[in-house]
Amino acid sequence: MAAIVSCSLNRAFQSTTRRCLDAHFKSCNVARESRLTISSSHRPAARPVVRWFTGVRFMSHGTAGRTAAGPTRRTALALGGAAVVTGAAAAVGLLVNTGHFQRAEMATRVSLDAVKPQEEGDILERCRGFMSDPVSDIKELQGRKDEMRTRMEMLIMQTQAEFCKALEEVDGGTFKVDRWARKEGGGGVSCVMQDGKVFEKAGVNVSVVFGNLTEEAAKQMRSRGKVLKGKDGKLPFCAMGVSSVIHPKNPHIPTVHFNYRYFEIEEEDGSKLWWFGGGTDLTPVYVNEEDAFHFHNTLKEACDKHHSQYYKDFKKWCDKYFYIRHRGETRGIGGIFFDDLDSPNQEEAFNFVKSCTRTVVPCYLPIVYKHLNDSFTDEEKNWQQIRRGRYVEFNLVYDRGVKFGLATPGSRIESILMSLPLTGRWEYMHEPTKGSREAEMLKVLRDPKEWV
Amino acid sequence: MAAIVSCSLNRAFQSTTRRCLDAHFKSCNVARESRLTISSSHRPAARPVVRWFTGVRFMSHGTAGRTAAGPTRRTALALGGAAVVTGAAAAVGLLVNTGHFQRAEMATRVSLDAVKPQEEGDILERCRGFMSDPVSDIKELQGRKDEMRTRMEMLIMQTQAEFCKALEEVDGGTFKVDRWARKEGGGGVSCVMQDGKVFEKAGVNVSVVFGNLTEEAAKQMRSRGKVLKGKDGKLPFCAMGVSSVIHPKNPHIPTVHFNYRYFEIEEEDGSKLWWFGGGTDLTPVYVNEEDAFHFHNTLKEACDKHHSQYYKDFKKWCDKYFYIRHRGETRGIGGIFFDDLDSPNQEEAFNFVKSCTRTVVPCYLPIVYKHLNDSFTDEEKNWQQIRRGRYVEFNLVYDRGVKFGLATPGSRIESILMSLPLTGRWEYMHEPTKGSREAEMLKVLRDPKEWV
Repeated sequence: MAAIVSCSLNRAFQSTTRRCLDAHFKSCNVARESRLTISSSHRPAARPVVRWFTGVRFMSHGTAGRTAAGPTRRTALALGGAAVVTGAAAAVGLLVNTGHFQRAEMATRVSLDAVKPQEEGDILERCRGFMSDPVSDIKELQGRKDEMRTRMEMLIMQTQAEFCKALEEVDGGTFKVDRWARKEGGGGVSCVMQDGKVFEKAGVNVSVVFGNLTEEAAKQMRSRGKVLKGKDGKLPFCAMGVSSVIHPKNPHIPTVHFNYRYFEIEEEDGSKLWWFGGGTDLTPVYVNEEDAFHFHNTLKEACDKHHSQYYKDFKKWCDKYFYIRHRGETRGIGGIFFDDLDSPNQEEAFNFVKSCTRTVVPCYLPIVYKHLNDSFTDEEKNWQQIRRGRYVEFNLVYDRGVKFGLATPGSRIESILMSLPLTGRWEYMHEPTKGSREAEMLKVLRDPKEWV
Repeated sequence: MAAIVSCSLNRAFQSTTRRCLDAHFKSCNVARESRLTISSSHRPAARPVVRWFTGVRFMSHGTAGRTAAGPTRRTALALGGAAVVTGAAAAVGLLVNTGHFQRAEMATRVSLDAVKPQEEGDILERCRGFMSDPVSDIKELQGRKDEMRTRMEMLIMQTQAEFCKALEEVDGGTFKVDRWARKEGGGGVSCVMQDGKVFEKAGVNVSVVFGNLTEEAAKQMRSRGKVLKGKDGKLPFCAMGVSSVIHPKNPHIPTVHFNYRYFEIEEEDGSKLWWFGGGTDLTPVYVNEEDAFHFHNTLKEACDKHHSQYYKDFKKWCDKYFYIRHRGETRGIGGIFFDDLDSPNQEEAFNFVKSCTRTVVPCYLPIVYKHLNDSFTDEEKNWQQIRRGRYVEFNLVYDRGVKFGLATPGSRIESILMSLPLTGRWEYMHEPTKGSREAEMLKVLRDPKEWV
């Protein structure tokens, strides 16, 4: 097991993230008090009142690198850290500085166009911010830094680190970090926080595996319409992804799940077949329209920057995928889900996935902070436990990733099943009282809604 | 939902069952005090000291029908009740009366050879002892009383009633009885007791379904080597069974599961293909050699009466079937499991299944009574919850019945999933301390033992 790598850059990350979220949180409170508007002290005089959960987010003009820092920190920043911090800030969704705000679209445009070179710049420096060393050897990554599998491995490690740190801050606990190797090639980094103050069970897993595709797996590929020709029947492949499931204790804080992955197969002639997949979805215990709107709208904004159809199509795909057929209900209120994404080109597809990974914290953390101190009854906790039982049913009966993992020799079972809640419950013939908030939740699960 | 049918015969059943178990329970205590021997006051002077958990059981000389009873009760007994009570007593495994004992083998021989005609005699009278009306119409059952599907439906209804009543007696609670119909043909009777004094969740389900085999199901049959020819592609079938899972609260009382089923398919020429399947298995939270021996030996004795290979083969089959592959461990300590049994002939196969159903109460109830008042710690309860999580994993990932049920349109999901425990737990990377009783349990699950 690897220890958590903590460095100055790391702290810069954390303090910026914290400031962002503090501001976000405060604003959420303000928003709730003033019917989702920001009080005048929090917005520029000239701007109109802005709703908070419409996904309009704010950031400063690239001041992250200019915040005061001690000597160690300055050294870190000199090694390309400024860009990373800016990147992290973009992922968090906002930066707050001396009351000057601009729309998030602009911020994202800046981060994508201007800071990409540095952001994906120094590998060693970026690695210092991760929860552990990446799966691949750092020297190897440096040697092939422009290849997609390197850029994706760096992205998933970074996504893991940003999300874990945001969760540690709200919980006060620490992730247990397990770095593991796979006998057949590759390995992973599993971060789990269990029985924390806020989170019952929080797991964020990175895996990077490679080897040769088995005949069975190759057949599956072919049935998906991808004709693959291997050298001597062998198809070298590389698969990597970051996935996470967070189960909070408080029934008013929803469970979140996300997963972003990249697949590469080398054919006989050396050409590479590749695609991306992923998604983020929310599983609340009770319906909260405001949360649902915020979550979906944050995803929609990220999608809209890349293709006007993405949100619509991937939202529908998500509802279809996370469907517990034998119950006739979805697992949660959805989000987005996509697979086999190999268009319009690799760079654009990667940029889209990058945008998605950057929405994880701003999609979820504001909702966590908002409900942090909500009180709840035994009945509400019981309903949460029943919903957790359904979560287990979906994951064990239908989830393709889990099924594939359990059936694959050499899989790390604990990393696959860390998505299961700490506890679940199955009551015979449980049916919520008509007109109750539990019945309201079931209605939404039985007939998915449009939230934006 | 049907109410529980309670009649005089029923009460006769209960009081006999209770007496039997009280005696058994007392003897168990005695056995523990005296290293598994019966104290002299409980055995005939001329006989040698007999070990209790070797499966040697005792009964009186058919005195059940002669016990004192009021007028109502006498009426019930006059209608064939005596035989039923004797049957029930044989199922319980022993009858105690005025200190005269005989070996169980003899008792079983008596019950199988002498009392069968009456035992399967009056259908209406037997139905009065059930938890609800049978699935098929009583008049229809009377009209085809010699057919195997009638005899099997009566057997599974009787098994359900005997087991439920034995569990109600030890718990003090009452089963909720749901009688349900299947749109496509047939239905079932689900009995569930939840959050009782002794049992966290106890489910005993009977189902009798019929219709035409789908092409998919027919294909599955063919792949099993059975060539089936349907009339116009249609294969009328009838499937029925009793199945049960009992999850107690106390971690020192094991979970038990059993299932006995019968399948019939009519081919083009009107000839019928049939087979039986079933099994009983135990899932303790801690190893208890005495319990394991008692459980397996009771099954072995039942098997040995029918074929010397049965116990050996079906014990192995059970270990193989209840295997959680991704964990590398069995679900519990096994028992027996068999399928496709269609030899040596229908009558003998049915007799074997009948013997098996009769072992259910004597296999399990003595163990329940023995540990009824065992104290337990939070750590022991926690380990039980983790084992419950594994139970859920097996049932949702591997169990053929559950998988088939969830995938079959028109299935009654609540009856299929009533096998899940009330609560389960998944801790990341849980590993018992070396040398602990939890580690001892895992060792047995990872390397199944021979218990007799």
